[in-house]
Amino acid sequence: MSITSPLPGRAGSVDFVDGYTRLFGIVGHPIRQVRSPQTVTFELRRRGINAILLPLHVLPEDFDSVFPPLLKLANLDGLVVTVPHKTAVPRHLDGIGPLGKFSGSVSILARTSDNCWVGEMFDGTGCVQALQKHGIGLTGQRILLLGAGGAGAAIAAALARTQPASLHVKEPDNGRRNRLRARLTGAFPALVLPDGMPQLDEIDVLINASPVGMLDADRMPIEVDRIPAHVAVLDAIMDPEETRLLHLAKACGCRTVPGRDMLDSQIVSAVDFMMATRTLQLGEVAYPT
Amino acid sequence: MSITSPLPGRAGSVDFVDGYTRLFGIVGHPIRQVRSPQTVTFELRRRGINAILLPLHVLPEDFDSVFPPLLKLANLDGLVVTVPHKTAVPRHLDGIGPLGKFSGSVSILARTSDNCWVGEMFDGTGCVQALQKHGIGLTGQRILLLGAGGAGAAIAAALARTQPASLHVKEPDNGRRNRLRARLTGAFPALVLPDGMPQLDEIDVLINASPVGMLDADRMPIEVDRIPAHVAVLDAIMDPEETRLLHLAKACGCRTVPGRDMLDSQIVSAVDFMMATRTLQLGEVAYPT
Repeated sequence: MSITSPLPGRAGSVDFVDGYTRLFGIVGHPIRQVRSPQTVTFELRRRGINAILLPLHVLPEDFDSVFPPLLKLANLDGLVVTVPHKTAVPRHLDGIGPLGKFSGSVSILARTSDNCWVGEMFDGTGCVQALQKHGIGLTGQRILLLGAGGAGAAIAAALARTQPASLHVKEPDNGRRNRLRARLTGAFPALVLPDGMPQLDEIDVLINASPVGMLDADRMPIEVDRIPAHVAVLDAIMDPEETRLLHLAKACGCRTVPGRDMLDSQIVSAVDFMMATRTLQLGEVAYPT
Repeated sequence: MSITSPLPGRAGSVDFVDGYTRLFGIVGHPIRQVRSPQTVTFELRRRGINAILLPLHVLPEDFDSVFPPLLKLANLDGLVVTVPHKTAVPRHLDGIGPLGKFSGSVSILARTSDNCWVGEMFDGTGCVQALQKHGIGLTGQRILLLGAGGAGAAIAAALARTQPASLHVKEPDNGRRNRLRARLTGAFPALVLPDGMPQLDEIDVLINASPVGMLDADRMPIEVDRIPAHVAVLDAIMDPEETRLLHLAKACGCRTVPGRDMLDSQIVSAVDFMMATRTLQLGEVAYPT
């Protein structure tokens, strides 16, 4: 932060915010753990845009009364949505992208030039991009996905787009698992969705989208004590950065991708989407593919 | 602004906002001309507080639907209110200070520790403080105030508190002038409020609180071509910084105070009020005197 000392008799001033600053926000509860304020603001500034992404702490019980009025702030250009509000957003939007529709949740909102608000779910795309950035191929590969909740559904849809050889979904809640499998089959008829649990040496990529291991470095989302070295492992969990699953994978010589890389990968494409949408009318919005 | 280059594979970050940042805002329309984002943020940072004051552009037609939900943002600690919303704020508050009640308008809002919102009108206090900072006394002095609108009423009440010898109020709208005089008499029974227009050599301090001269360096709020050198002149107009009135006053050897000093003077006391209120319950709030 740079601050300028005041002239005699004059108020001092900072150089990172003024009346022209465009606003972006991240809406969540709790809010202190978020990193978008630092990282998305960096990306906006890197592009020469006078803008800040702020933490906007909205309590769950206030969401439906606070969120729609917030969208009326005339200098607000985009929002990131995080826990627990992702599934509450779609009902307040004028348009929603295909992954948002599929997962019933939205992580990035953008304002159109005709002052409508549209959104899309970027969490799955972030997972795919993080794997690609680590040189881990998905097309033609055999993937095992742990977890069929909100994050799992978004990741499954993004994975399906990459045309893997097969996608196993493991989820302790059978009803949830079957619902996701049915929706995947409907949306991606060519996707191979084997039933049952594979051996780890029958898969190429292992992705944890379940909460098991979050804030608990002792728990494992899958009961194994060895992972074949050819399996690439991504854990969507942010905290701890090295989960027990990733620790084991590293020890076994696997390539590993931490959850934070998933989030970092979304930043550029989310800012691309928000800035491009600002110049388009509702009917012209292009969702990332 | 300081930005940190990203580590390889990692998102870059800025150092002036994160998930812990407390929010302050200035609510107005238009918004680009405001200076509180730079100056109040400076004052907050100077005190070591992780906070930013942002421009919040609220259109007049949206005010009543957007403003109350905004106050529910759990990390929002205070607001500055500017044109044209100052008179619309009081109806949304849990508590209002004496100058806010008197003027029917509020410029600074603070959140109490029990999550109530209180406000006070600081514009008049800023005028008095700016004069005092320039060494211009008010107690026992003869003051001529031009304008009896919102700004004029707030300034008149703050001036009345300093116990001047007399306060002349000049205002082309007779009804408005008489209403302000009646309210001043009710609130400050000892205040001497002479009728009619004095000669400039019969006064000590001349204050323009009318909009005449705003964005128009050719217009004068009072028809004179000379001001006695003993008269101190404050013009509440911000733009241009040197109005025709101030230009004439300087040329005549008068002490002059520009409108910007009025705003600058409010910053420290407004931040004091917002930070102190954050630690108090609604019943304990102390308004500046």
